[in-house]
Amino acid sequence: MTKVLSENEAIEVIKAGRIGRLGCVEQEGPYVVPINYLIDGREIYSHALPGKKIDAMRVNPLVCLQVDHIRDDLHWSSAIAFGKFEEIRNPQSRRTVISKLLCGFPKMTPVESQIVQDAAAPDSIVFKIVVDRVTGVLES
Amino acid sequence: MTKVLSENEAIEVIKAGRIGRLGCVEQEGPYVVPINYLIDGREIYSHALPGKKIDAMRVNPLVCLQVDHIRDDLHWSSAIAFGKFEEIRNPQSRRTVISKLLCGFPKMTPVESQIVQDAAAPDSIVFKIVVDRVTGVLES
Repeated sequence: MTKVLSENEAIEVIKAGRIGRLGCVEQEGPYVVPINYLIDGREIYSHALPGKKIDAMRVNPLVCLQVDHIRDDLHWSSAIAFGKFEEIRNPQSRRTVISKLLCGFPKMTPVESQIVQDAAAPDSIVFKIVVDRVTGVLES
Repeated sequence: MTKVLSENEAIEVIKAGRIGRLGCVEQEGPYVVPINYLIDGREIYSHALPGKKIDAMRVNPLVCLQVDHIRDDLHWSSAIAFGKFEEIRNPQSRRTVISKLLCGFPKMTPVESQIVQDAAAPDSIVFKIVVDRVTGVLES
């Protein structure tokens, strides 16, 4: 049975996840990568090293984060948050976000722990997705 | 240690998966959904009911399929196949693809079994992604 989730139910799907697939649009078409994230209200936080996805989102800030919980082909839920990419440049805000991400993902590498010590390091990009709308489906 | 995969290695990541995240571009931005798929050479096959992703791909056929195998934050691989959406309309070809998908996913619903009996049913869209290039990364 397929059920279309309410926005609040879809947000719960995203809250319950820790790995999502970030979708963005580059010149050649869509680009999708797995990311760790945290959601707080209607903002989703993550960070990344410079690269293709950051380049793409700086040019076209329309992004989505898709999160699913799949038990098998007949029992799964999936949600998508649509929103806008915004870079977090303020050193204090960067530090706060990275600390929270590290709390959520204690297995992150020493390199990332180093970033907490020096959140101003320009090589890590901290960003948020300001969520505009969330949709989801439950198959059960 | 992060390793950039060769195209052949990245294709292996996709071959080893069964659930991927299809990325496409709709008017409002990127759209990502989980799909079951089969890969055969440089073609990826799947099917779907009419809806947002099919509408989007008919307008803009540039798509990608992202597949990952995540053990934990430090041990994972991810690959992306970039290509073009092509609808499969020939009844015999539709039947062949759906049969193969059913072999790969025996838990698919009776509704989908019904489609095998009547592959001409207009409500299921069978499609392939004609792969242009594949990239991937291994974290180990």
